[in-house]
Amino acid sequence: MTLLHLSTWMEVETYLTRSPGIILPIGSTEQHGPTGLIGTDAICAEAIARGVGESTQAIVAPTINVGMALHHTAFPGSISLRPSTLILVIQDTVRCLAQAGFTKFFFINGHGGNVATLKAAFAETYALLADLRLPHAEQVRCQVNNWYMCGSVYKLAHQLYGNEEGSHATPSEVAVTQYVYPQAIKTYPLSPEVSRDHRIYGAADFRRRYPDGRMGSNPALATPDHGRQLYDLAVKDLSSNYLEFLAAE
Amino acid sequence: MTLLHLSTWMEVETYLTRSPGIILPIGSTEQHGPTGLIGTDAICAEAIARGVGESTQAIVAPTINVGMALHHTAFPGSISLRPSTLILVIQDTVRCLAQAGFTKFFFINGHGGNVATLKAAFAETYALLADLRLPHAEQVRCQVNNWYMCGSVYKLAHQLYGNEEGSHATPSEVAVTQYVYPQAIKTYPLSPEVSRDHRIYGAADFRRRYPDGRMGSNPALATPDHGRQLYDLAVKDLSSNYLEFLAAE
Amino acid sequence: MTLLHLSTWMEVETYLTRSPGIILPIGSTEQHGPTGLIGTDAICAEAIARGVGESTQAIVAPTINVGMALHHTAFPGSISLRPSTLILVIQDTVRCLAQAGFTKFFFINGHGGNVATLKAAFAETYALLADLRLPHAEQVRCQVNNWYMCGSVYKLAHQLYGNEEGSHATPSEVAVTQYVYPQAIKTYPLSPEVSRDHRIYGAADFRRRYPDGRMGSNPALATPDHGRQLYDLAVKDLSSNYLEFLAAE
Amino acid sequence: MTLLHLSTWMEVETYLTRSPGIILPIGSTEQHGPTGLIGTDAICAEAIARGVGESTQAIVAPTINVGMALHHTAFPGSISLRPSTLILVIQDTVRCLAQAGFTKFFFINGHGGNVATLKAAFAETYALLADLRLPHAEQVRCQVNNWYMCGSVYKLAHQLYGNEEGSHATPSEVAVTQYVYPQAIKTYPLSPEVSRDHRIYGAADFRRRYPDGRMGSNPALATPDHGRQLYDLAVKDLSSNYLEFLAAE
Amino acid sequence: MTLLHLSTWMEVETYLTRSPGIILPIGSTEQHGPTGLIGTDAICAEAIARGVGESTQAIVAPTINVGMALHHTAFPGSISLRPSTLILVIQDTVRCLAQAGFTKFFFINGHGGNVATLKAAFAETYALLADLRLPHAEQVRCQVNNWYMCGSVYKLAHQLYGNEEGSHATPSEVAVTQYVYPQAIKTYPLSPEVSRDHRIYGAADFRRRYPDGRMGSNPALATPDHGRQLYDLAVKDLSSNYLEFLAAE
Amino acid sequence: MTLLHLSTWMEVETYLTRSPGIILPIGSTEQHGPTGLIGTDAICAEAIARGVGESTQAIVAPTINVGMALHHTAFPGSISLRPSTLILVIQDTVRCLAQAGFTKFFFINGHGGNVATLKAAFAETYALLADLRLPHAEQVRCQVNNWYMCGSVYKLAHQLYGNEEGSHATPSEVAVTQYVYPQAIKTYPLSPEVSRDHRIYGAADFRRRYPDGRMGSNPALATPDHGRQLYDLAVKDLSSNYLEFLAAE
Repeated sequence: MTLLHLSTWMEVETYLTRSPGIILPIGSTEQHGPTGLIGTDAICAEAIARGVGESTQAIVAPTINVGMALHHTAFPGSISLRPSTLILVIQDTVRCLAQAGFTKFFFINGHGGNVATLKAAFAETYALLADLRLPHAEQVRCQVNNWYMCGSVYKLAHQLYGNEEGSHATPSEVAVTQYVYPQAIKTYPLSPEVSRDHRIYGAADFRRRYPDGRMGSNPALATPDHGRQLYDLAVKDLSSNYLEFLAAE
Repeated sequence: MTLLHLSTWMEVETYLTRSPGIILPIGSTEQHGPTGLIGTDAICAEAIARGVGESTQAIVAPTINVGMALHHTAFPGSISLRPSTLILVIQDTVRCLAQAGFTKFFFINGHGGNVATLKAAFAETYALLADLRLPHAEQVRCQVNNWYMCGSVYKLAHQLYGNEEGSHATPSEVAVTQYVYPQAIKTYPLSPEVSRDHRIYGAADFRRRYPDGRMGSNPALATPDHGRQLYDLAVKDLSSNYLEFLAAE
Repeated sequence: MTLLHLSTWMEVETYLTRSPGIILPIGSTEQHGPTGLIGTDAICAEAIARGVGESTQAIVAPTINVGMALHHTAFPGSISLRPSTLILVIQDTVRCLAQAGFTKFFFINGHGGNVATLKAAFAETYALLADLRLPHAEQVRCQVNNWYMCGSVYKLAHQLYGNEEGSHATPSEVAVTQYVYPQAIKTYPLSPEVSRDHRIYGAADFRRRYPDGRMGSNPALATPDHGRQLYDLAVKDLSSNYLEFLAAE
Repeated sequence: MTLLHLSTWMEVETYLTRSPGIILPIGSTEQHGPTGLIGTDAICAEAIARGVGESTQAIVAPTINVGMALHHTAFPGSISLRPSTLILVIQDTVRCLAQAGFTKFFFINGHGGNVATLKAAFAETYALLADLRLPHAEQVRCQVNNWYMCGSVYKLAHQLYGNEEGSHATPSEVAVTQYVYPQAIKTYPLSPEVSRDHRIYGAADFRRRYPDGRMGSNPALATPDHGRQLYDLAVKDLSSNYLEFLAAE
Repeated sequence: MTLLHLSTWMEVETYLTRSPGIILPIGSTEQHGPTGLIGTDAICAEAIARGVGESTQAIVAPTINVGMALHHTAFPGSISLRPSTLILVIQDTVRCLAQAGFTKFFFINGHGGNVATLKAAFAETYALLADLRLPHAEQVRCQVNNWYMCGSVYKLAHQLYGNEEGSHATPSEVAVTQYVYPQAIKTYPLSPEVSRDHRIYGAADFRRRYPDGRMGSNPALATPDHGRQLYDLAVKDLSSNYLEFLAAE
Repeated sequence: MTLLHLSTWMEVETYLTRSPGIILPIGSTEQHGPTGLIGTDAICAEAIARGVGESTQAIVAPTINVGMALHHTAFPGSISLRPSTLILVIQDTVRCLAQAGFTKFFFINGHGGNVATLKAAFAETYALLADLRLPHAEQVRCQVNNWYMCGSVYKLAHQLYGNEEGSHATPSEVAVTQYVYPQAIKTYPLSPEVSRDHRIYGAADFRRRYPDGRMGSNPALATPDHGRQLYDLAVKDLSSNYLEFLAAE
């Protein structure tokens, strides 16, 4: 693994002679229910991205810690970029790296709320690179990979938690954070009743609909050992995806 | 059915006393292969939206004819907004209508490339409405509905066309345009070989990857009668979805 | 006539070998008094643009249905882009078409409120195209043509209606919509007293100043037959203008 | 006259107790042919605005020296804001003054190229002020007044110069600058042949079409005494317009 | 001295054959306490810039009269651009001049509040010029020079006023305006007690913290003769700085 | 210490009952010469921020890893936001936290290039919060604190390194990274000749001026033990600054 922030520019120059690929972890800073860490999505994305970097010898960019979480902002501690801001952040990021010679941008994402904006940003970025007449503009490819949607991860999560997995502040993501930060495992009496809704509109509506922040989940089921298993599966699947992405035209 | 553009403001005022819902067709203006109409996505979305409006007594906004189709812009005749522009268009549109009292925005969409940007736009719009302290800001809900993803439509399309349905310039969407505009049915010798790829990056890459514009599809299979069947199914499914959306909290 | 949305990209490619011109109808979605259709400006622009397209063999782009109508937004059903949004829409639209080879952009406009923003947008677009070093950037010309300002149209409108023509929700524009959509002719008891003011500031001020939405007009004078005459004159004049524009350096 | 820049904030506070009006000169910094000053439009607008301020006891804001002159930027020394930038400048300017209590914004403009963008900016600003729920938002009115379009000015210019007035680098505007800055009168052998065209597209096209920068004008006819007469007429007409604007609802 | 606004484009073309440098005065339009002129910062910057232009034969651009003064906007008469607007203004200004061939941009600044935004704008502008592939993009250099920070000026100000110089509405800047506009010297009984604070946050906080607008200053000490001395020193120092800047690589 | 990303929203809610302060580390991702880590600025800011958080019981936000480093982007691996993007990021970040009740924003910064844009962003953010009529808008204060400018740090750095400290890729910042990441100490033969220049313009100019990325520095002097000392001093000084900031009005 090469962490970009622990490299020198000369090492990056050398890296580029053997690979045009880079892994970019993107998370979010948002409430994850009474026991989930606010950094859950960034923690998971970062840890898994580093695992994938290690297994594939790929360089890993600094984590984008704040994403698109406007719907969580009625809970204190949540921070969100607006989609139009996040588009600019992605655009600025990719273009700097593309100007240096990177062409394969493999985003490892920890937050469902980022996906739409990331895809919009990719489209806007391809157009920008073409406008700039960047030499390798046509070769640039961006791909978003949600670790929690990996086949093996999804399967294990549902084996372990069934429909108590829910869709936000899930035991699977909480488990990964417990594995990564065992010193930060939180406990709190969770109501057994939790909304089975899945609709997301504005922030005030979200808090009314999901009063403690969970969406249909029971994170009390999470254990650090589950986290380790989920982490291992995600790293394995995404490593394979990354290599395929790198090899693809 | 009430078409907004064929109504007076007084009629809209009256409408709002009985319903806060509005249907907004959104399409795209982009190449659809050698035989598909450039307006395919707008044509389908508009026709189906009007059908849904008729069956549910809902008001239908003017069609947003141009969407997010940057990847098609290496083919002449394609027009695209950048995602950041489309976000502003959606924001301006929804806020005007929300200020008038509408709260349920049911977008009927004809183009996969619009989905990510629409979702990003909805998030940005909810936040804007909250910032403006609009009286009904918390009640505003936007939903995107892709007519081609309705269960019954999807099933029939695959019954009729199997894997020749493909993912762009599909026989199912071409069929709907043939039903709506029988006078504009185009013919052209389609190569039996068509890329089975499904990846979408920048515009130049897209044209290289999909030289005649089709993605895995055989639109020669389309008939106006298929179009009628698909249209009927879409209208039925989406009418039901709309009423459910209107009734939901 | 060739409607862009009913064409294939190959047909557009062929068209471009014989002409670099395109007609773009732009309207507005805004109140037009108690009897005028909310879509009046888009309906007139679209119908006349198609007439011009037919008589000149020019291609006609999809109608831009929503324009700059912020001052009408205190009346329900009105939708407006902000000027800065509309500038981006025009810029995105023209640049896509200019990249494909179009250089003569003939906008047929149905709404006075669009004119200033369109002109600003044209200036911004020329600069953008130069920045992009588009091969034909220097040849690109945009022109806005208000159908209601054609000499013959203006003259007939004043013959028919004198000073009851007014300046918004005019009998002449209502007449054209009656000709195009005879099934959507509205009636409502119009007060004989109507403001003779012509000043336009913000939306709340506008509604206070023009309580039923009309500006000095008596649309009750409109007839479908007037509409047909006005339409014919507009098409004739603008067809001639278009050909002159196309031929000009 | 009160010049804002020569006032203290306490004087402005006092002024606001007796008048909500302010005069804002706006010019441009752009080529005006071989003998016209680059600052012509700002010079004329500023001088006339101060004259109007003197005769009406109105406060005069600092001159906006750079406007929308993109089409002149192929000539060295021209500076232009893009329309979207100028909209923001106007918006920021008006909102600061409106928050302080000003409601009547009387722009005295020296450059035709500013008009469209100013009108777009006014519309966008009214909407912004409403969004901000500014107490006096509904009372805010902006008006653009082109000094060269005053009836008496226009008449004298055509009496003096006939069709040699032209439409850019006109003898009338040059005359006013000669009256204001007699020390900066320039001479240069002007070709008697000058384009009678009046079309304006992009900057490169403009320079090709109007090689020395003039549009149909013969500024050699200008004299400082003409300038004085034109100045006097403009001040008289605009003073009367300002008082009417102030008094109007 | 050459004032850009009193030059013709041909004179600028000639100037560029001998120098790529330009001086740009930038001020602000903001309260300067009970006796300071609202235009203080623009007046000082403009006068000194013209002095520097005269002594160095450099061309001087029109003054940017309005800068970044958001924190002063709770006092009537203050006008501010938002930083993001000012960045665009600087960008548009520099790029027009850079396209004409200027490469050395020497800003003479009269307002501390402009500095951060100017520096941000310079960075953004260099990147823009590179994106545009402007021939001389790599040679473009922008520099901000605060006249009040010149060594000799700073020293004299503290000799004359000691700690009554303060940091806003200072006697030194007031003195320069008295020298430039002796007809506009204001008097008002200034409280001997004045906040010695120096912190600047939002506009409402600023007015609460500095009720009459002064920050630790006693402008009653200013005299026109001080102003003349300070002006002379500033012109001398900045002329030398300008020539050094011009000569530097 | 409380790390925001290792907290739950309920813990943040509790924290806010006792303190309105938050520490935000901001760094940069940019070349730091042949031996300096690309993440140097983020690493230092993050480590020191956590130290300050620990000693003051303050909450620490996730690190903003990418800042304003456009001038470094000609070296591979550097990533920069444009100033206008960074302004939006800061604005979005502060407003989310301010809406939750935070009012004291203490940025610990590791990169000189961020300072101007941060200050511009703070001004823009105060204005935004006022526009939003946030209850505590007037209480919001943002402060940027450059760890390397702390008196004690600056003094020790110059004691240890004299004028070999330089101004970029300094031994002091490299030493802190060596203390934090001893496993990532890099060696490379550094030329004893290094530019003593300090000017910063565009990216291409920067690389030409500073070919290996260093500005006057000799990072070979750095040791992990120096890093520990510098870290300790920075934490001590900034802890004291933070408490003062928190207590101040």
